[in-house]
Amino acid sequence: MHQKRSFICELPQMKEQPIKIAGWIYHLRVLSQTTFLVVKDATGIIQCVMQTDLNSNLHLRLDDCVEVVGNLIEDPRAPNNWELHVTSIKKLSESAQMLPFNSSAVVENISPEIKIENRPLVLRSEKHGGIFKLQAKMIELFRRYLTENHFTEIVTSKIVASGTEGGTNLFQMKYFEKIAYLAQSPQFYKEQCVAGLERVFETGHVYRAEPHATSRHLTEYYSLDVEMGFISGPEEIIELERGLLNYMFEDLNRTHAKTLESFGQPVLPSMEKAPTWEFGECLERLKTSFGRTDLVDDLDGEAERQLCQLAQQEFGVPAVFVLGFPLSARPFYTAPRGEHGAAQSFDLLFRGLEITTGGQRLHRRSELESALKKKRLEPASFESHLRMFELGMPPHGGFAIGAERLTAQILGLSNVREATLYPRDRNRIAP
Amino acid sequence: MHQKRSFICELPQMKEQPIKIAGWIYHLRVLSQTTFLVVKDATGIIQCVMQTDLNSNLHLRLDDCVEVVGNLIEDPRAPNNWELHVTSIKKLSESAQMLPFNSSAVVENISPEIKIENRPLVLRSEKHGGIFKLQAKMIELFRRYLTENHFTEIVTSKIVASGTEGGTNLFQMKYFEKIAYLAQSPQFYKEQCVAGLERVFETGHVYRAEPHATSRHLTEYYSLDVEMGFISGPEEIIELERGLLNYMFEDLNRTHAKTLESFGQPVLPSMEKAPTWEFGECLERLKTSFGRTDLVDDLDGEAERQLCQLAQQEFGVPAVFVLGFPLSARPFYTAPRGEHGAAQSFDLLFRGLEITTGGQRLHRRSELESALKKKRLEPASFESHLRMFELGMPPHGGFAIGAERLTAQILGLSNVREATLYPRDRNRIAP
Repeated sequence: MHQKRSFICELPQMKEQPIKIAGWIYHLRVLSQTTFLVVKDATGIIQCVMQTDLNSNLHLRLDDCVEVVGNLIEDPRAPNNWELHVTSIKKLSESAQMLPFNSSAVVENISPEIKIENRPLVLRSEKHGGIFKLQAKMIELFRRYLTENHFTEIVTSKIVASGTEGGTNLFQMKYFEKIAYLAQSPQFYKEQCVAGLERVFETGHVYRAEPHATSRHLTEYYSLDVEMGFISGPEEIIELERGLLNYMFEDLNRTHAKTLESFGQPVLPSMEKAPTWEFGECLERLKTSFGRTDLVDDLDGEAERQLCQLAQQEFGVPAVFVLGFPLSARPFYTAPRGEHGAAQSFDLLFRGLEITTGGQRLHRRSELESALKKKRLEPASFESHLRMFELGMPPHGGFAIGAERLTAQILGLSNVREATLYPRDRNRIAP
Repeated sequence: MHQKRSFICELPQMKEQPIKIAGWIYHLRVLSQTTFLVVKDATGIIQCVMQTDLNSNLHLRLDDCVEVVGNLIEDPRAPNNWELHVTSIKKLSESAQMLPFNSSAVVENISPEIKIENRPLVLRSEKHGGIFKLQAKMIELFRRYLTENHFTEIVTSKIVASGTEGGTNLFQMKYFEKIAYLAQSPQFYKEQCVAGLERVFETGHVYRAEPHATSRHLTEYYSLDVEMGFISGPEEIIELERGLLNYMFEDLNRTHAKTLESFGQPVLPSMEKAPTWEFGECLERLKTSFGRTDLVDDLDGEAERQLCQLAQQEFGVPAVFVLGFPLSARPFYTAPRGEHGAAQSFDLLFRGLEITTGGQRLHRRSELESALKKKRLEPASFESHLRMFELGMPPHGGFAIGAERLTAQILGLSNVREATLYPRDRNRIAP
């Protein structure tokens, strides 16, 4: 008789015995009479107990794939209170005699390179698989909040004829007889779609030919992009992001408490309390509290950490929205804030690192043309984009969050590669 | 006083007057005393009524962006039973004097090229914006069903060192000093992730350097990819897809009935009734019903239409799972079905077109090596992938659905470009 396999998470609800499960051997202890094995599937783990002679021809090893049939017994001594008494076991697939490490080992001290080259074992680890399960949930929550707030998901091309910001750090590709580039951001497309749908988001890859290999940069990352129309200023965009992150954080605190805990992380803070500080105010604070006088038109990594520290002291949350960056340091499409060279543009610093850049954009063709000229860019080469501004473009703005970077900040990972399944940098294109 | 802007869909629930809305002018009728305008935002439309002299300095045009303040009056003669009596109106942004077409025009007869070059107007159209709203919902439902069934979303790199299937139709790119390629599918990555997480899905772009420009092909499309472990055969994958599509179709029938209707489409069928026919059986049926004797190891477009027609006649649903394609026509990693050269591989034909390819994969390194050699590929060049099969790889399989193609089939669009915001083909890389 072909018996249906059950998921481990479903077992306590199941009435009929025997039960069939399948998964990996996550722990294994062979005694002379009895063998204890913990089996792990997509949904959980369960301890299985069997007579050791059932194993005599199988030579079970850690990380083998097995199918197990047995009877479920309630036992308060077992993890999760249930134990499977094995009546038969079958090896579905064998792991190598010598693995670089086992999935249930302490993965902490293994080098990032070895982890990337053995992704299945890392993903199978309860703790480290948790990084990517949390990331998946985070992306899901991002989409869900926006969908509930009248945003439509868009899918836009990553093959483009020119850069969105003037053309540095672009990857070049051969496109039949033409040259094309990989998109640095969906910026132009999300603005165009706002002119049709008013509120849009996209979750997708963006590409930066960054020649530097740092712990924060990837050449390919997953960007959580938002753009909205009919705004009266960047404060509305900040409000949206605040609500969005609150929603995401509250849910993750509830659903992924175990992963946060296993990485020694406190619960994620409420973003309601995160202050919004003007750029000039930030420079003042950095001067007063840290004696810094070296910053002029941008923040550096140290300043990002210092500002989060100040926000933590004053508001109990290690996060600041910095608003009003100098216009000169921002892309051409950025709207000005007042008359004195500031931009309607903000960064969100979180736990010492910039995780978002956003702002209000120019929405009139004539203003965009002037702005391009000021940056010594040729309006004619942006014609296919500028045209769209004549079709009824509302005042608008938005922001983008790097998914890997946010995951790393949430879990306190020191390198963004730890939160990237298949990282790409200066030196790595495989696996 | 700064009054908060309300969404049009919220108006009937609102108690306080006056009300402020913002949106585009979707319809406009100016009489000597009274002006009627329909305003559209992200959430709906509402008829606004105002004294014509309020407009005397504004020169309102269709597709302008406006902010309107007024009092909401219930009126059974108005569309949706409510009407806004305007007390003040402000133009936020102006559309060009001459538009190629208006968003409320009948977009039907406009050429695909003009539509692509004026995306905002197409998206603003109630009917044609509906294509992309339905697509967004479809993708959301895909993810939601899988998440509820223990699948984890993964994000994998699109920059790869080599092709997954031997190397034709690959786009080449310059990656610093190296040559890299754009991924044709996440096949290898999703298999590797199954070895860690058991059940995974990805929604992301894939790239095919297709030199042919047809109504069904794009060089970049959005692939809805699924892979699952611990299966006993391809029938389980077919069952999963059947359940998934049923879930998606039932929801779309309910939530997007208006869009289905505006494209003259019947409700989406229940996939429970779609038959699974062996490849050999399909050839027999095509011979019996259509006298076809020309097909040997694959189906052609006509055969796909004919098989859907037969399924419609016999089971009332224009869809067939075709299982057991000849192994010779499938990629090296495909598992064999029996001893006679068939593959554990299937296509789903829906309304006359293949929308899915899937199947069970080989899961043992030794079998993969033999299969590579049979296809005259060098195992050594797949080493970084083959290694993963020694880390505890369960029997597994999966499938992929092209999002644009499925959208087109759902709405009866004759060209997949109609369901692609920014299509890429042999000749197009902008906008």
